[in-house]
Amino acid sequence: MRRRLIGVVGSSRGTEAQLRLAYEVGQLLAQRGAVLLCGGMTGVMQAAAQGAREAGGLTIGIMPGANAYESPPNEFIEIALFTGMREGRNYLIACASEGLIAIGGGYGTLSEIALGLRMGKPVVLLDSWQFHIAGEPVEVLTAHNAHEAVELLWPRLPHQP
Amino acid sequence: MRRRLIGVVGSSRGTEAQLRLAYEVGQLLAQRGAVLLCGGMTGVMQAAAQGAREAGGLTIGIMPGANAYESPPNEFIEIALFTGMREGRNYLIACASEGLIAIGGGYGTLSEIALGLRMGKPVVLLDSWQFHIAGEPVEVLTAHNAHEAVELLWPRLPHQP
Amino acid sequence: MRRRLIGVVGSSRGTEAQLRLAYEVGQLLAQRGAVLLCGGMTGVMQAAAQGAREAGGLTIGIMPGANAYESPPNEFIEIALFTGMREGRNYLIACASEGLIAIGGGYGTLSEIALGLRMGKPVVLLDSWQFHIAGEPVEVLTAHNAHEAVELLWPRLPHQP
Amino acid sequence: MRRRLIGVVGSSRGTEAQLRLAYEVGQLLAQRGAVLLCGGMTGVMQAAAQGAREAGGLTIGIMPGANAYESPPNEFIEIALFTGMREGRNYLIACASEGLIAIGGGYGTLSEIALGLRMGKPVVLLDSWQFHIAGEPVEVLTAHNAHEAVELLWPRLPHQP
Repeated sequence: MRRRLIGVVGSSRGTEAQLRLAYEVGQLLAQRGAVLLCGGMTGVMQAAAQGAREAGGLTIGIMPGANAYESPPNEFIEIALFTGMREGRNYLIACASEGLIAIGGGYGTLSEIALGLRMGKPVVLLDSWQFHIAGEPVEVLTAHNAHEAVELLWPRLPHQP
Repeated sequence: MRRRLIGVVGSSRGTEAQLRLAYEVGQLLAQRGAVLLCGGMTGVMQAAAQGAREAGGLTIGIMPGANAYESPPNEFIEIALFTGMREGRNYLIACASEGLIAIGGGYGTLSEIALGLRMGKPVVLLDSWQFHIAGEPVEVLTAHNAHEAVELLWPRLPHQP
Repeated sequence: MRRRLIGVVGSSRGTEAQLRLAYEVGQLLAQRGAVLLCGGMTGVMQAAAQGAREAGGLTIGIMPGANAYESPPNEFIEIALFTGMREGRNYLIACASEGLIAIGGGYGTLSEIALGLRMGKPVVLLDSWQFHIAGEPVEVLTAHNAHEAVELLWPRLPHQP
Repeated sequence: MRRRLIGVVGSSRGTEAQLRLAYEVGQLLAQRGAVLLCGGMTGVMQAAAQGAREAGGLTIGIMPGANAYESPPNEFIEIALFTGMREGRNYLIACASEGLIAIGGGYGTLSEIALGLRMGKPVVLLDSWQFHIAGEPVEVLTAHNAHEAVELLWPRLPHQP
């Protein structure tokens, strides 16, 4: 049976609080049987992968470089998919994920949130970006802790064909 | 001599005011000898291409589809580069542009702004997104009219090697 | 620990003999602990995935479409990575694989062989293309059965950093 | 009106004879009003771009690197589209070209030929690869000089919508 793929995106640095959130999100996703998809680097990506692995989950890193010398995967990545496409890999993460959880984040994370929303994926934000257009806030699903993030995401995931 | 490539990104719809801004930006870029790079579709992309063409400029559309049936280029696109990569083409626009001007915009535009900023490109916003992180606004170059947008962008473009 | 990723590429149809080869290659790769990377569709891709799964291995399909309606993964694909990049996904398969085995094949397979060789990956052919340039045959690793293919490939795989 | 895009692919080295063929093909394409699409590097790509430019044509290089430091365009490239996608750019060349002429070539060229054929594009070979499958030669359009290559290609180009 095909496995659910959930993307966790976030900064390669991340604050202590964000790393803790990422770890917990990774754990919860693994406990629900989902595969963790992430950018494979440090910070939020690493903490989420660690959480998933320590809960027995499978972790996939969609890497920007063409090999491990160019973009070394963090030690909790079981499957490193080297793309050689740099930030183009942000599109791949958004496209391959059935839903996304964004934690903290820089501009790379912002691009993944935007691409996910553009493609109609459910995206839940945790201590992350807020957007306004024409002075008005744009509503995006926002959670206050890891549990809430996963609870918000789950019913919005597509049914698998 | 190599030509400068400037990306103009924005919504496939766009308000009257945004389309007028896009038209003017297209004109100004053509007058400075730059090639207009855009998504090749309707709305802001079309208005910018019209402005550029009517000022004698060259226009390139980086199209999401693999051919003109899948993603018909607007009539002001002289060179339609079909990518078959959908939203992955947003990355290509950001990567190939030396600088970007964003006008209005939906999530696709937001992704192009974010990818441009992530790659260190100068990005100028015109009646477009505003971002906050942790409650604090993030400063991005913002202009109030087409002239100001081009004036802000120009000195920040990289020197060509 | 990171898993080895081996690509098996081949036609979406494939003769009886090629499907049997693909099944055996899939089995052998799984027995060696490698993850099977393939295009996720029918024919050689499906037979290889079936072989890998029935030997307890993990299978990843790098899909051309953006979702399962556009490009339905075969039933032996455990992880379907939808790329929305069509034939662009052939590049991704070649880039992400540490080594490739090509079985039979049409032009898509030919492109994957060529991209793999271009990127310096070890590529082993099984009942597949032969190339000449300027009338001279170009030597590519060629095997006569599944065992030989895996035996030829293995010592040529890169050491993981 | 939209311009025709014709891809010329070939080795970054190329023999004297191949460079002369590429130069002539570039000239002929420009004389027919087509835009030359190529990989933007040295060898066949440079000779074709030189021919096109010296006949007054427009030249586009789809570059593998993300900027001119990573992949310097040859001096006859007027529009350098930096993709940062490396060999993934081979797919983009094949996808964006309405037809392709391949001259000489290494594995990169072979991948572009295969991708073009896979996508149903007319592809004409000039002193380039020959393929066999199951011992049988596979027929691909083959020309003996630049004029013949362009004459073979032209009637097979798609009508523009």
